Amino acid sequence: MGLIRSWVESANQAEGQFPLNNLPCGVFSVAGDEPRCGVAIGDFVLDVAGLEEAGLLVLDGGPLLDVPFWNDVMEAGPEVWASLRARLGKMLHEGSALRAEVEPCLVPLSDATLHMPFLVAEYTDFYAGRNHAFNVGSMFRGPENALPPNWLHIPIGYNGRASSVVVSGTPVRRPWGQVKGPDHALPSFQPSRRFDLELEMGAVVGCASEGMVSVAEADAMIFGYVLLNDWSARDIQAWEYQPLGPFQAKATATTISPWIVMKAALEPFRVSTPDREVPLLPHLQEMGPMLYDIALEVALQPEGGAETVLSRTNYAEMYYSAAQQLAHHTTSGCPMTVGDLLGSGTVSGPTKDSRGSLLELSWGGKEPVEITGGRRSFLEDGDTLTLRGHAQGAGYRIGFGDCAGRVLAAHKDPVGAGR
Amino acid sequence: MGLIRSWVESANQAEGQFPLNNLPCGVFSVAGDEPRCGVAIGDFVLDVAGLEEAGLLVLDGGPLLDVPFWNDVMEAGPEVWASLRARLGKMLHEGSALRAEVEPCLVPLSDATLHMPFLVAEYTDFYAGRNHAFNVGSMFRGPENALPPNWLHIPIGYNGRASSVVVSGTPVRRPWGQVKGPDHALPSFQPSRRFDLELEMGAVVGCASEGMVSVAEADAMIFGYVLLNDWSARDIQAWEYQPLGPFQAKATATTISPWIVMKAALEPFRVSTPDREVPLLPHLQEMGPMLYDIALEVALQPEGGAETVLSRTNYAEMYYSAAQQLAHHTTSGCPMTVGDLLGSGTVSGPTKDSRGSLLELSWGGKEPVEITGGRRSFLEDGDTLTLRGHAQGAGYRIGFGDCAGRVLAAHKDPVGAGR
Repeated sequence: MGLIRSWVESANQAEGQFPLNNLPCGVFSVAGDEPRCGVAIGDFVLDVAGLEEAGLLVLDGGPLLDVPFWNDVMEAGPEVWASLRARLGKMLHEGSALRAEVEPCLVPLSDATLHMPFLVAEYTDFYAGRNHAFNVGSMFRGPENALPPNWLHIPIGYNGRASSVVVSGTPVRRPWGQVKGPDHALPSFQPSRRFDLELEMGAVVGCASEGMVSVAEADAMIFGYVLLNDWSARDIQAWEYQPLGPFQAKATATTISPWIVMKAALEPFRVSTPDREVPLLPHLQEMGPMLYDIALEVALQPEGGAETVLSRTNYAEMYYSAAQQLAHHTTSGCPMTVGDLLGSGTVSGPTKDSRGSLLELSWGGKEPVEITGGRRSFLEDGDTLTLRGHAQGAGYRIGFGDCAGRVLAAHKDPVGAGR
Repeated sequence: MGLIRSWVESANQAEGQFPLNNLPCGVFSVAGDEPRCGVAIGDFVLDVAGLEEAGLLVLDGGPLLDVPFWNDVMEAGPEVWASLRARLGKMLHEGSALRAEVEPCLVPLSDATLHMPFLVAEYTDFYAGRNHAFNVGSMFRGPENALPPNWLHIPIGYNGRASSVVVSGTPVRRPWGQVKGPDHALPSFQPSRRFDLELEMGAVVGCASEGMVSVAEADAMIFGYVLLNDWSARDIQAWEYQPLGPFQAKATATTISPWIVMKAALEPFRVSTPDREVPLLPHLQEMGPMLYDIALEVALQPEGGAETVLSRTNYAEMYYSAAQQLAHHTTSGCPMTVGDLLGSGTVSGPTKDSRGSLLELSWGGKEPVEITGGRRSFLEDGDTLTLRGHAQGAGYRIGFGDCAGRVLAAHKDPVGAGR
């Protein structure tokens, strides 16, 4: 399938992010007005809440867009997701008779402030990248114990903190935390000195479940995908994570892209997970390709400096798909909720320049990375970190918008500074 | 302070759970009506939603009780919590002139079905019992590595799954999961054979925060306490928990008592945490007693059999208070939300008959526990597990109601069985 042409001319550019094939879901505001649901098309946001209000977009069970989040649309189910795409496709298609009615609902992206696209019910982060798990395991436990015994059998995950998920553009404050260096007898409480990013994709769960679901059912429950940066304080993590896993090291913030790319837009880009090194138990096996060919990059821009791309990789590097992760998530009978967010785990490729975290890129700080005008082992105050991603079609791209955040200096005295 | 006498005679019994000193918050329904907010008094629920509706109970910022959960009251803040207690105290006090107006709003507890008392925003479970950590650590990692190096310095915790928190009385289905025995080369997927309880207290966070809070501020943010059973599949946990902590082993269900006992009702029972074995860093130190003297017990009743009390212990056994846990939870800047639930960690005393889990009571299954008419290493299908707790005042008790759940047999084929 090639580019689907739109009368919105900027949507037809080969290197744009938001052709008619995409139609990602976001929440925007203009000039201090209340945030509302919108869909990106070319250089514009289509005010779909406005379309619904005006009676031009009627969805089963609606109104669904009269709230500043996409959860109500998700909850309406996959048929409504499909009908939404079909109707928007008709409205925006080159030569559409509806152009005159729809055009007044286009808002230039440059005028729009983007907000959290959905209410995050709960947030789970996985560890499903083979290269990342090996790299980090090597540093934390030595290469001989790098890959935990369970790693090739289950998509390991842990529950994260939904309250800390923020939209691209939100500054991220360097956290304080308890740390203990190997040469110190006692821990101390201080700002993190090893504050890092993690390049991930996030899957947005659009259907609730009770009881266990199959991998195929799990795939059908996914509404769409976002870019996700799981900011991580490595020094805090190293001290706290045994035996119950990461906690405060991961709770400062998790940044997501402003646009949820619906699963339907990614269909042409499905790829299989890599060959299994050991066979999976039947309940975790995939019946078809459930990963996606999505090119990803990490860029770092120091305060007042130029941007350096630190890493280029691809979501297809993951060992487990989001569908497998979600199926595993339900094995215990754990109820899943509309708006649950599943982080893929860090996407690292096999080469040094395709690693998805500074921990790996600088090998625990031992091999600082060269950037324009400096070097980095971990993030410094004022650094802006940007994730980008796109699926490459024939003559078009499916993008997510930048997933960016700037690191603010730690508070001098953290208690009460947030008030 | 002794018993505060009420004109509700059943509230004046020395061994009752719900004297006027208590006034715990719950949600109830009668004969299939919509659930609504109520407060327990003696053998009755006081329909506080009805009182508010009738204009007899006016709260700042109200109506706050016109929803089937206590989150709106919590969100209104500590002054409203105090004024609610003051007004109810006046209404229910022996000799109150308001008796005639209030009495029609009493519903016999025996007629009421109890529901989740609040919407759980996020759920965090800690590991703050010294004896439990030592016992479990000994079994999982050997006595020499039992207490992790960080344990005496931070209240270790992990994020749990809010969607799996249920109210007392909800049956709990034995989970399936991936397990691997020490003698097996490969894991298998099967119903848990080591399904267990954890006797805990839960702290309900009533105030939101951004940025870090002090231990004193954290204490002020807590609305109240519940009993909490963190059901745990030990075989699933043993295979999955390294390196990212417990996940599906803890996601089947967490049962809480139907009544939230407000912190104010527990004030007379404050006790200090035990002496520190090593000094805490200043940000985790307590300025006063922040634990509570609450007698706890675990009882097991097999299907059709008699109940056996497995264990008796006290919340005062904990090494860290909920206030310390909450302060630690915010160190990274993690935003806390109204309705967050913090599990204390398993409350085990120093003696064998005061252990708070079957894992410890049966020492990993090696020393099965005698019960009336049988023995238990772990829970069997049909077992009803009940937690009880009370603070003992002079001539009165502050209770939480039973925190109970019956274990249902695992589904034969778990996929789709929940539908």
